[in-house]
Amino acid sequence: MKISERELVESLRDYFDLHGEKISEWMRAKFIEKFFGTKPHPFVTALQHPTRATLLGYVVEHQHFLRQWVKSCAYIVAKTDMVDATLYELDNINTEFVGYGSEGPSHYELLLRMGESLGLDRTTILETPPLSDTSIAIKTWDQIARDSHWVETMAAMHGLELIADRTLVSEGAKATYFDPSILRKESNEVTDATKNFLREGYEADAGHSKEALDLVDKYSSRFSNTENVQATFARSIDLFQNYLMARLERAEQFTE
Amino acid sequence: MKISERELVESLRDYFDLHGEKISEWMRAKFIEKFFGTKPHPFVTALQHPTRATLLGYVVEHQHFLRQWVKSCAYIVAKTDMVDATLYELDNINTEFVGYGSEGPSHYELLLRMGESLGLDRTTILETPPLSDTSIAIKTWDQIARDSHWVETMAAMHGLELIADRTLVSEGAKATYFDPSILRKESNEVTDATKNFLREGYEADAGHSKEALDLVDKYSSRFSNTENVQATFARSIDLFQNYLMARLERAEQFTE
Repeated sequence: MKISERELVESLRDYFDLHGEKISEWMRAKFIEKFFGTKPHPFVTALQHPTRATLLGYVVEHQHFLRQWVKSCAYIVAKTDMVDATLYELDNINTEFVGYGSEGPSHYELLLRMGESLGLDRTTILETPPLSDTSIAIKTWDQIARDSHWVETMAAMHGLELIADRTLVSEGAKATYFDPSILRKESNEVTDATKNFLREGYEADAGHSKEALDLVDKYSSRFSNTENVQATFARSIDLFQNYLMARLERAEQFTE
Repeated sequence: MKISERELVESLRDYFDLHGEKISEWMRAKFIEKFFGTKPHPFVTALQHPTRATLLGYVVEHQHFLRQWVKSCAYIVAKTDMVDATLYELDNINTEFVGYGSEGPSHYELLLRMGESLGLDRTTILETPPLSDTSIAIKTWDQIARDSHWVETMAAMHGLELIADRTLVSEGAKATYFDPSILRKESNEVTDATKNFLREGYEADAGHSKEALDLVDKYSSRFSNTENVQATFARSIDLFQNYLMARLERAEQFTE
């Protein structure tokens, strides 16, 4: 399809028009459009009632994502002078990677346990390098965090947590990340370790990503860098789309 | 004093010569030379039995140091791919700035409480901008963390924790950071909040800085960047020397 310069300019203007709303509302709408439309992202479709292969594809690629997640969020801490952003990110990194001792393992640890519960040992998981699309996405997120304003990085990273935000349904999302019935105590569709991993995101990310997006609203307005934040977020969800496809590509390896 | 080029080269070679020892041993020796020689740094002398003014000078300047500390260490987390370094730095940032809930306030919080116990309210402390020497040092530490290899940043930052390392005495230090008798329960020389702040460093930093310097030994050797690490550490202790003078300069303001 060939489009004229004028059409391109107009379509870009349309895409980035906030229509007087907060940037976080625009982000939510764009996220729904890309991942939860009438044709949801193929990984979302696969995760509704996931096979062992889908979950193992998730585990193997996502360990790399979470390592980069910590690094990207650490760049925010390194660059911001705002105490609320510092404390938010440190809490987030602790939850994702460090854990809270006896109170609860990190999200990263829960991911590895999910893999083990599906018969893949930890050493194998940790030794498997990322697929090319995962690798490209990770490198780009690293570069975004290193070179962009920290508010852009916040939008780029925490915008992705919308994937597990159930409240998007009331704003037009046609699906949730997975069918919540698989978490039920009486359901045997997935292993307990899988439930523990998925539940963490299911329960935490709605409020968690909201808090981050509130900070994005506040500081993109204070630093007057809304357009850069939008552009970086748009780039990030493109990367995420490819990264989710890499999970499915990896899953093929585990298909019986 | 005018020295020839040859003398300069020889003196530099002397300064950086590891004499076959680990880089951490060289760092310890250089630190002792600069801060704990026969004529200890004036702030160390003042802290042996500190006046209220000395402690308030400490509080007001050090709040800025600790904010930068978090940022510098976050750069290490952002840049390293080594899990032991990541976990070490996150634990360190949590102790310094986040705290462990009911288990214990952060080092930053203990500092502010020390200031309050000496009659300076928190708002005044937080609103006081740093003195010029503090400000220059902080900007340079930020630049080091942003632009240098993470192992250099580790040496630059955690090398400074040697200030509270009591074990340096067995390696030739002529003084400790303060006279430990002021921490005694029966002593009324300093407030309880002051004891709590100083004790934290006194008890933690010996082992804490050792763990960091072990990582510096390990990774400076693995990345073959020993000379850069040495140069950055040397620069950092120069900055620290000036920064400690700024604490004394600030103390003058509180001298009755």
